[in-house]
Amino acid sequence: MKKEKNMKKLWQKDTQLNKTIEAFETEGDLVLDQKLVEWDVYGTLAHVYGLKKIGLLTAKEAGTAQKGLLEILAKNSGGSFTLSKGDEDVHTKIENYLTHNYGEVGKKIHTGRSRNDQVLTAMRLFTKNELLKIWQALLALAKSLLDFAKEHEFVPIPGYTHMQKAMPMTVGMWAAAFVESLADDSKLFEIIYGLNNQSPLGSAAGFGVPLALDREYTAKLLGFTHQNDGSCCSPAPQPPTMGTPAVGRPGSHHPSLQYHHSIQQNSLYCQNSRGKIEATVVSGLIGQLQTINKLASDILFFTSSELKYFTVDPSLCTGSSIMPQKQNVDIAELLRSKVHLVLGQYTSLVSLSSNLISGYNRDLQDSKKPLFESLEITLSSLQVANLLVQGLYPNYQKLYQSMTPELFATHKALELVAQGMSFRQAYQTIGKDIKSIQKMSKEEIDELLKTSTHIGSTGNLGLVKLEKQLKKEMNKVEKEKKEFEEVIKSLIKY
Amino acid sequence: MKKEKNMKKLWQKDTQLNKTIEAFETEGDLVLDQKLVEWDVYGTLAHVYGLKKIGLLTAKEAGTAQKGLLEILAKNSGGSFTLSKGDEDVHTKIENYLTHNYGEVGKKIHTGRSRNDQVLTAMRLFTKNELLKIWQALLALAKSLLDFAKEHEFVPIPGYTHMQKAMPMTVGMWAAAFVESLADDSKLFEIIYGLNNQSPLGSAAGFGVPLALDREYTAKLLGFTHQNDGSCCSPAPQPPTMGTPAVGRPGSHHPSLQYHHSIQQNSLYCQNSRGKIEATVVSGLIGQLQTINKLASDILFFTSSELKYFTVDPSLCTGSSIMPQKQNVDIAELLRSKVHLVLGQYTSLVSLSSNLISGYNRDLQDSKKPLFESLEITLSSLQVANLLVQGLYPNYQKLYQSMTPELFATHKALELVAQGMSFRQAYQTIGKDIKSIQKMSKEEIDELLKTSTHIGSTGNLGLVKLEKQLKKEMNKVEKEKKEFEEVIKSLIKY
Amino acid sequence: MKKEKNMKKLWQKDTQLNKTIEAFETEGDLVLDQKLVEWDVYGTLAHVYGLKKIGLLTAKEAGTAQKGLLEILAKNSGGSFTLSKGDEDVHTKIENYLTHNYGEVGKKIHTGRSRNDQVLTAMRLFTKNELLKIWQALLALAKSLLDFAKEHEFVPIPGYTHMQKAMPMTVGMWAAAFVESLADDSKLFEIIYGLNNQSPLGSAAGFGVPLALDREYTAKLLGFTHQNDGSCCSPAPQPPTMGTPAVGRPGSHHPSLQYHHSIQQNSLYCQNSRGKIEATVVSGLIGQLQTINKLASDILFFTSSELKYFTVDPSLCTGSSIMPQKQNVDIAELLRSKVHLVLGQYTSLVSLSSNLISGYNRDLQDSKKPLFESLEITLSSLQVANLLVQGLYPNYQKLYQSMTPELFATHKALELVAQGMSFRQAYQTIGKDIKSIQKMSKEEIDELLKTSTHIGSTGNLGLVKLEKQLKKEMNKVEKEKKEFEEVIKSLIKY
Amino acid sequence: MKKEKNMKKLWQKDTQLNKTIEAFETEGDLVLDQKLVEWDVYGTLAHVYGLKKIGLLTAKEAGTAQKGLLEILAKNSGGSFTLSKGDEDVHTKIENYLTHNYGEVGKKIHTGRSRNDQVLTAMRLFTKNELLKIWQALLALAKSLLDFAKEHEFVPIPGYTHMQKAMPMTVGMWAAAFVESLADDSKLFEIIYGLNNQSPLGSAAGFGVPLALDREYTAKLLGFTHQNDGSCCSPAPQPPTMGTPAVGRPGSHHPSLQYHHSIQQNSLYCQNSRGKIEATVVSGLIGQLQTINKLASDILFFTSSELKYFTVDPSLCTGSSIMPQKQNVDIAELLRSKVHLVLGQYTSLVSLSSNLISGYNRDLQDSKKPLFESLEITLSSLQVANLLVQGLYPNYQKLYQSMTPELFATHKALELVAQGMSFRQAYQTIGKDIKSIQKMSKEEIDELLKTSTHIGSTGNLGLVKLEKQLKKEMNKVEKEKKEFEEVIKSLIKY
Repeated sequence: MKKEKNMKKLWQKDTQLNKTIEAFETEGDLVLDQKLVEWDVYGTLAHVYGLKKIGLLTAKEAGTAQKGLLEILAKNSGGSFTLSKGDEDVHTKIENYLTHNYGEVGKKIHTGRSRNDQVLTAMRLFTKNELLKIWQALLALAKSLLDFAKEHEFVPIPGYTHMQKAMPMTVGMWAAAFVESLADDSKLFEIIYGLNNQSPLGSAAGFGVPLALDREYTAKLLGFTHQNDGSCCSPAPQPPTMGTPAVGRPGSHHPSLQYHHSIQQNSLYCQNSRGKIEATVVSGLIGQLQTINKLASDILFFTSSELKYFTVDPSLCTGSSIMPQKQNVDIAELLRSKVHLVLGQYTSLVSLSSNLISGYNRDLQDSKKPLFESLEITLSSLQVANLLVQGLYPNYQKLYQSMTPELFATHKALELVAQGMSFRQAYQTIGKDIKSIQKMSKEEIDELLKTSTHIGSTGNLGLVKLEKQLKKEMNKVEKEKKEFEEVIKSLIKY
Repeated sequence: MKKEKNMKKLWQKDTQLNKTIEAFETEGDLVLDQKLVEWDVYGTLAHVYGLKKIGLLTAKEAGTAQKGLLEILAKNSGGSFTLSKGDEDVHTKIENYLTHNYGEVGKKIHTGRSRNDQVLTAMRLFTKNELLKIWQALLALAKSLLDFAKEHEFVPIPGYTHMQKAMPMTVGMWAAAFVESLADDSKLFEIIYGLNNQSPLGSAAGFGVPLALDREYTAKLLGFTHQNDGSCCSPAPQPPTMGTPAVGRPGSHHPSLQYHHSIQQNSLYCQNSRGKIEATVVSGLIGQLQTINKLASDILFFTSSELKYFTVDPSLCTGSSIMPQKQNVDIAELLRSKVHLVLGQYTSLVSLSSNLISGYNRDLQDSKKPLFESLEITLSSLQVANLLVQGLYPNYQKLYQSMTPELFATHKALELVAQGMSFRQAYQTIGKDIKSIQKMSKEEIDELLKTSTHIGSTGNLGLVKLEKQLKKEMNKVEKEKKEFEEVIKSLIKY
Repeated sequence: MKKEKNMKKLWQKDTQLNKTIEAFETEGDLVLDQKLVEWDVYGTLAHVYGLKKIGLLTAKEAGTAQKGLLEILAKNSGGSFTLSKGDEDVHTKIENYLTHNYGEVGKKIHTGRSRNDQVLTAMRLFTKNELLKIWQALLALAKSLLDFAKEHEFVPIPGYTHMQKAMPMTVGMWAAAFVESLADDSKLFEIIYGLNNQSPLGSAAGFGVPLALDREYTAKLLGFTHQNDGSCCSPAPQPPTMGTPAVGRPGSHHPSLQYHHSIQQNSLYCQNSRGKIEATVVSGLIGQLQTINKLASDILFFTSSELKYFTVDPSLCTGSSIMPQKQNVDIAELLRSKVHLVLGQYTSLVSLSSNLISGYNRDLQDSKKPLFESLEITLSSLQVANLLVQGLYPNYQKLYQSMTPELFATHKALELVAQGMSFRQAYQTIGKDIKSIQKMSKEEIDELLKTSTHIGSTGNLGLVKLEKQLKKEMNKVEKEKKEFEEVIKSLIKY
Repeated sequence: MKKEKNMKKLWQKDTQLNKTIEAFETEGDLVLDQKLVEWDVYGTLAHVYGLKKIGLLTAKEAGTAQKGLLEILAKNSGGSFTLSKGDEDVHTKIENYLTHNYGEVGKKIHTGRSRNDQVLTAMRLFTKNELLKIWQALLALAKSLLDFAKEHEFVPIPGYTHMQKAMPMTVGMWAAAFVESLADDSKLFEIIYGLNNQSPLGSAAGFGVPLALDREYTAKLLGFTHQNDGSCCSPAPQPPTMGTPAVGRPGSHHPSLQYHHSIQQNSLYCQNSRGKIEATVVSGLIGQLQTINKLASDILFFTSSELKYFTVDPSLCTGSSIMPQKQNVDIAELLRSKVHLVLGQYTSLVSLSSNLISGYNRDLQDSKKPLFESLEITLSSLQVANLLVQGLYPNYQKLYQSMTPELFATHKALELVAQGMSFRQAYQTIGKDIKSIQKMSKEEIDELLKTSTHIGSTGNLGLVKLEKQLKKEMNKVEKEKKEFEEVIKSLIKY
């Protein structure tokens, strides 16, 4: 194999780009582009097949390109396709590699596309893949919390408002609150996943090209598709554009699947959605991290020296360098902080992509890092929060002890209501004599918690329904993931 | 009617709240609460009917409360139910009003609820009402842009990247890009609307109450319902809780509607979702304001002294106090700035509701203003952007003049490709001799733009499909709005 | 006095501005402009005197203008100079008022200025006045905390890390930490105050005017001056520009003061600093609100049901509508939330003023509200935090009880170090046998806290020094405030 | 040298930390800690000398520790002191290295300190070093802009408001506006630099220790000092604490320097200032990046296809992969985006450090990355902006052509004023007949720009004064930098 040194930029004419400028423009970005290699190869494969379909590449040329691209894929898996200083970006590196090693065909693969739609395609695929992992991790965390809720469903714990003991609650209610929060997050996630899952390939520099590109075909090859129930996402497919050969109907290799392809139609909108779709994705992650933030905040409060309602498995705790007695739940603190990091990324994304005119502006390159980091932070946070929940043990003795009489003041007032007093008067009556409320026995507490049975109260948490809902979601994600894996397999084997 | 001065706080015992503290805690908030009066009356009505249903209010008491509440509604429409210093909040004001004027029943209406679920209910209803207005305004703006795209579908305008002339585009493509952007916004909006549209009523202080509240019944009365297609939102309803009288099945007054009620189940989650659902709603608004921001940025660039591609109706323009010649499109600047304001509100919402333990914390009171202002800003921005689009005129002469030869360099390269040259070589060939490209005639330009026919290119914008999609969305919103209006009417007449 | 209805915009020619557009552009802004009336009158007075000085107004004209302007001032104090729909802004309203009531001179006062420098001048003066109030409130809060620290200097309280009991601390150390934090805030405040305190008057639309405006003279008249120690702020004054009459040296009415005027020199920079100086001011406020946030967070934790280290005066507490036993420190929660609100404002300020070309853009109008609200929030927060500190009582009994043995583990390890063991070994020795640490008596605790005497430890808090520093700062602010009041008095009487 | 594998955590007892948790807690952080190695060695050296001074280490032990620490320093420079998975942090790695290779003394160096004050010390030193580089780069950029202003002082360029041509300006005024902006940034920078430049060493875990640590001594050794003019920073030094040996007065090795040490006094405040001082530093960087943002926005507008007022050296420009004609100023776009990235970092910093109780919380670990990245982004942006200014060429011909008659409308109105007409009437007179304004010759334009001579106008930019101010600032930074370098040299040679 030939040496691929001193590659030219795609656009390079006579002048040399100043080295400091080059470093500023590309160094950090190349690290991110390394993660895109795999996905840019897929996008390029689809583009190559698309060019062949409309007669702009011969079958032989397409085969050669495919060979080269799979070679890059293999090298990349093996860690030997490494972007480094001087490479402008992943797209340039790939074209240069093909041209260097496979000659003329390398010079042809950019026909009818621009790095503008190319990078968008790679980013959408990369993001989709990460979103699927996140979605699964989200549901796995919800499942652990649900199991925790079921195990300790009727164990009492004080409910707090204003950081003061308020009313009796159960560990079950506490944990199930997070399950329902994550279930809401999952609903939002689905539509956000769908917004990302639209093919920009073929929009070129943002204004289309005078070629009969078959954008539906490449969308289908890349799995920019959605399930058939009509509940989601993108405009229904158009009839094939004029000039598309009648044979080889796009996607005919997946005859059994009930998926429709999903195209981001307007060429300019493909570029204009940069920053916007990234921000939308990140806003969805923030919702999940808000849920984790509250979970972690509670765990820190409930494991504090004075409460000790919960214990955390020692294998998840750390100590102090100076204070011999400390055993800290640092992990909950580091989970708590993550929503703030991603909030910052969101701020950057919206702010940097505003006040810009339509069409690609290079500012948008700086939207990659906030997006990539947000995806990574969210995935690991969900996984680690799951471990934390699995290592969390309610301290039953402390919890029953914590059920001090004033927690039952509202119940006492409602007892007076049952005897015919108006609530406000009952409230005042009890309020004047809080100290008279008696401590309740374990049995009385258990009874009281179980017999509060309106929807969503301690005795009627609806865990069975939540479980059903989670399973349905899990199946959906599982199916979506398999479909995507199969699409990629088909694309490679094509 | 008796005077209602010096009302006590609901919780007040002996001490007086310090006046400065009271002002700090309530002054700004009362302005917001004024907007909630109507919605808090509705929530209270539903709660009253719910108490009656489970036997905690007699029919007579419920009737009296209804009378008082409708009186408040009437006074509020007439501007004479005004919250002022000393009133703690809208909830206190309403209870005090009823107690003052209708006696004992006023003291009973808070049975089984807390201001925590009460304010949430009022906010969700208020937000829902605003979201419906915003949704309509969003689709109306999309419609105006679509009409603009249709009118000037094939008129050329330079496409820009990096603020430099890039490739030929059409005014149609430009405008349709915003239509598709708003269509995406609308999709996201639907799920966000659904997340808000869940009833928290009956969750009380966040831990439930030991009463057989029928939360499905009140949810239905208030229109916390979703259309029947199963694509959206919340857990399916549970069977009625024990203790619910068999008669008077919830919602039996709407037998013909195919809506399901939507309950935010877990009592603690109702409170924990404060901040989170608000932030989610605002993130949806940000997407719309990002679209408007780009629209406004383009209009400012395209109307600048040097381009004059577009003219704005003089009735939408303003001048300078010192420079006699100025006619500025200030309105586009003030539209451009709005996404930044709402981004700030979002930042506040996520930041203030993080690092807090579960259950209500008073910090959350400060989430009202960011939410309310964001809704207001977005609604007026959509309406004003619509006016701007309607007063926008492309300057055909300038636009044809602007189509300078270098814009066609890519087309020229692709012509060489058609003759068999590889794209990269064609690119370099043309690149070396940009100046040789000839100016094109009006006819040649028109031809070139129309014959670029892949999906989303200048000759195939898919406007018909977009129009169909918009109409479908408009019908959906229209239906949703009517349903909500009918629910409120039924509630009042109940 | 004549009626001043249907006033024309300053720039108005034939067309009428669309009413919806006008409302969108001005409605919210007029509320803010109302707060600027006083300051815009001062700025206009100085401009009038400046025009007279260079011969562009006669003494008589200047006198007439002064009369009219003082009339506006009086009306404004009396609440009868009210901006309302149809008034474009405060500047237009003032010019129109003068023209309407005093004829020709009204048409002359805008000679050599633009609303661009005019609004900047008014905002800088308004901001300066607010900053002085904030600065005093900041130092007053610091003083209360210092008094608190002195009163309870050696009272023990657990120090926490990771929300776990860590090492013994004192109430004195706790309170003094906030004093030092505020002292740092004050230092930063001084330079930020100085950056705002630069005169933009005379920069006109942002490009200067071909008139011999004496910008030093107007700067001095308006108190854009700084104390003489050279430690602060702005470029030293230039020699008078050519064409300035030799007589009547600017500022000669303040011969005794050792102040130098401070001019924001470059005309374009005056406009370009909009958004930037506002953001800088707000960043300084955020520092103060961060200090308050931590103070409030601690108070909420220390007053929680389980700790009760501190009690808050009942006149500062509020209750629950449903739970009779609750007495909440809501005020601390509402103080805690404020930094998040102002963080949002900061985000808006930086974001909206970025990606804009030089010179005034109307987007900047939207920087007023974030600034004004941030100033208002910070001032009231400082005042209310001061009240809270004054109503805060350490519960000595609870505090001594809280000093459980494990808090002294580090001390025990250091005792072993004193006996010759290495620290890491001592740490491990104690760590293995935490339970063996004995409870300490009140006397032993007191002794231990007092004899820890390195700088900043419990026995050596440096309160005397802090007190001296605060007094010095208070004097500085007091002096600055008086100087500003005198300047305004002189300006009116001129 | 012995192998240092499988090092224990400092706090480790029996349990193993879960590997996933360990990775989540440390992986990203170790990359940042690598940058702290050098600074943590310095902090540790000072602590060692401090322990020796108060008799807690013998001279021999201190010598051994010094040897080991300098060895680490050398290895680190050579790239062979690499933190990797399993190392908890830089502090643990250093202590373990010493213990492993130099035995007992390693176990002693943590006497009287905690990782809490240790990491703060290292971060403050690291930050100080970066701030000095940034300060120099800031002034260097200002100098280049000043040179540019001087070179093209009277060359005309249109001034814009609302993106419309407004009034004539000069290239000199344009460039000098940025110089003054950077000069303001430099003033703010000085106080922020001072706030960071306070020694936290000796505050231990945040509550002090019962040892006679000489904090003034270690502060002086580490260069936590400020210049003698009293204008800046921190409380004056206290008299030595009791128990300090009379010999070896702190800092007596620097008798000639007129610097005072600067100590962050209150032990708790040291910890509480985490997040706050970082945020303050970053707010200062944002100001600079706002300046660069506007500079870049202007350059992009002024180099756009339609204006071409400026040309950028081709060695700083890049091209397109698809459009052969493009030559883009990408570098300005990537400079423009940076303020948004750092705004996000600021948001994260303030948000994550809020709503936390006093004392160290592990959330604060996540403040390192936002701080480090902000420093790095700002430094490179200043350097690259400087290159851009040096490669920027005004296109005189285009600029004179751009001076179209309407730009002089205000001048024409002021001519009528000179003839006795009131300004408002003159404004209207000219406004009605804009088209009558004649084009001006080059000579007339030059004349007009030079004779506008009030302070800050085109004929009186005050460049000489700005230059003096810059030089003074440059000298100050230079002096500060040298002092710091000498302190470090002395520390090593000690």
